[in-house]
Amino acid sequence: MASPRIGIGMDSSVTPLRHGGLSLVQTTDFFYPLVDDPYMMGKIACSNVVSDLYAMGVTECDNMLMLLGVSTKMTEKERDVVVPLIMRGFKDAAMEAGATVTGGQTVVNPWCTIGGVATTVCQPNEYIVPDNAVVGDVLVLTKPLGTQVAVNAHQWLDQPERWNRIKLVVSEDDVRKAYQRAMDSMARLNKTAARLMHKYNAHGATDVTGFGLLGHAQNLARHQKNEVSFVIHNLPVIAKMAAVAKACGNMFQLLQGHSAETSGGLLICLPREQAAAYCKDIEKQEGYQAWIIGIVEKGNRTARIIDKPRVIEVPAKEKDGELW
Amino acid sequence: MASPRIGIGMDSSVTPLRHGGLSLVQTTDFFYPLVDDPYMMGKIACSNVVSDLYAMGVTECDNMLMLLGVSTKMTEKERDVVVPLIMRGFKDAAMEAGATVTGGQTVVNPWCTIGGVATTVCQPNEYIVPDNAVVGDVLVLTKPLGTQVAVNAHQWLDQPERWNRIKLVVSEDDVRKAYQRAMDSMARLNKTAARLMHKYNAHGATDVTGFGLLGHAQNLARHQKNEVSFVIHNLPVIAKMAAVAKACGNMFQLLQGHSAETSGGLLICLPREQAAAYCKDIEKQEGYQAWIIGIVEKGNRTARIIDKPRVIEVPAKEKDGELW
Repeated sequence: MASPRIGIGMDSSVTPLRHGGLSLVQTTDFFYPLVDDPYMMGKIACSNVVSDLYAMGVTECDNMLMLLGVSTKMTEKERDVVVPLIMRGFKDAAMEAGATVTGGQTVVNPWCTIGGVATTVCQPNEYIVPDNAVVGDVLVLTKPLGTQVAVNAHQWLDQPERWNRIKLVVSEDDVRKAYQRAMDSMARLNKTAARLMHKYNAHGATDVTGFGLLGHAQNLARHQKNEVSFVIHNLPVIAKMAAVAKACGNMFQLLQGHSAETSGGLLICLPREQAAAYCKDIEKQEGYQAWIIGIVEKGNRTARIIDKPRVIEVPAKEKDGELW
Repeated sequence: MASPRIGIGMDSSVTPLRHGGLSLVQTTDFFYPLVDDPYMMGKIACSNVVSDLYAMGVTECDNMLMLLGVSTKMTEKERDVVVPLIMRGFKDAAMEAGATVTGGQTVVNPWCTIGGVATTVCQPNEYIVPDNAVVGDVLVLTKPLGTQVAVNAHQWLDQPERWNRIKLVVSEDDVRKAYQRAMDSMARLNKTAARLMHKYNAHGATDVTGFGLLGHAQNLARHQKNEVSFVIHNLPVIAKMAAVAKACGNMFQLLQGHSAETSGGLLICLPREQAAAYCKDIEKQEGYQAWIIGIVEKGNRTARIIDKPRVIEVPAKEKDGELW
């Protein structure tokens, strides 16, 4: 098959190869650390990188590389403790993804950075080009929003001036739980979510990261073949984080859909009659909820959140048997 | 074929794929800018990344990603000028390599970094596992040494204290020519060098970069199947840079083989009877010399440079028709 190069606007690049109708699906991402546990940071970075493959419905990752920028401000002793933990977290998450980390590169820089490269070689039926939404589809989201709010609120526990702005709407315990929930969510792979996209005939997906829910929804809408628009009615948010976001004024723009997420969930266009089964299946397999958050209407390839969307409070303790 | 994962000690990772006996050959590298021309810097970064594929005898690059760390210390205007030039240089070099840059990631950090990812999917006969040197082989080097010395000497033109240390052995004009020669060398792809490895039955190669000639030679020697050692007799060095290195005391350790190179040449183990033809062929095709610099002896997988190696002064103007 001589498929043309598939264009931009997707989470991963897809390059036709010289061999047997195969395609190279590849992505890279790196960013700054945002949690204080180096092992979890490694897992989150890996989950975040490989998530771009999952957004394309790709479930196998053939190889990973790790990219690390170690801070010049760390002492040698700090580096010796922190770097191996980050690497272990990254490798453990890669193992969950079924991939091996075969290489990488480390440099020093005043600011720490962490990220990687995820690569798959696959047949055309292994990935789902995210441009096939039709009127009547619904939008499913597989992780709650609010990771950035939770991470910030957790930092503010040690900053009285900041904390005073939100302490009326949230307790310390709420914030600690939300932070744990956010870490757990960011470190979780979108692998099952990707696999079920095939089973339930998804018409396309993206993952929710730096541009927030609405930013990524708009990007996905823009690249549809059909004249459709996305309308979002429901916002699942880590418990209490909507209140925290509101208490901070316009800072996060969480309910406007602009709050950045790290290693967020997949936003998936599914046939209406399949969406509930998709959500039930993912919950059965992983113990985590997914939510129908919107619908696909006829339109000019845009996305919006309705006035006064319903906020779904997602409890910190969701998975059976977990301790928080 | 069920080839085992090929181990570390190589310039690129080689991962067997699920499809048709194919392997994924992949590498990543990034570092700090070292020349003051952003376009050339982009070309050098790209050549440096893809060089790890060439060291494996791989001549096709299927995909490239670019990794950029933009300095926080640049003004917005500086970024708007510099970043597009770097990207253009990177893309132009990728085009020479026959690859497309399909993605990448940019972050800010106080220190600028630049690099990328190069990926190929190929059949086993397309790469040369660098572990097959035999007694009687010779060592060929395809680019001169001294890029780091030249880059530093060029910076010292504006630092009187530094300049005073070397001005007795080198003129300003010498330094400018050496700097141009170094940029030209670093931006040149090792693609022809890699292609000719197949034609002349190379037994393995590596590219000379951060660990210097001897460091990379030692690494290559360590991974040989046979009980061999590498002995280096000749050091081709960009004109006058050996004198500059000597005038700086022990700082570069150029003649000891430890001076870092950026996007250096391939160091190749070739059958003795093929090596001269290899060098002649590469010069005919590219207008650049390659040199026989050493021999493969029986030994315990180490590498060394003889006492008082012969320094070959490589003139700044080498290629016919060039203006410097």
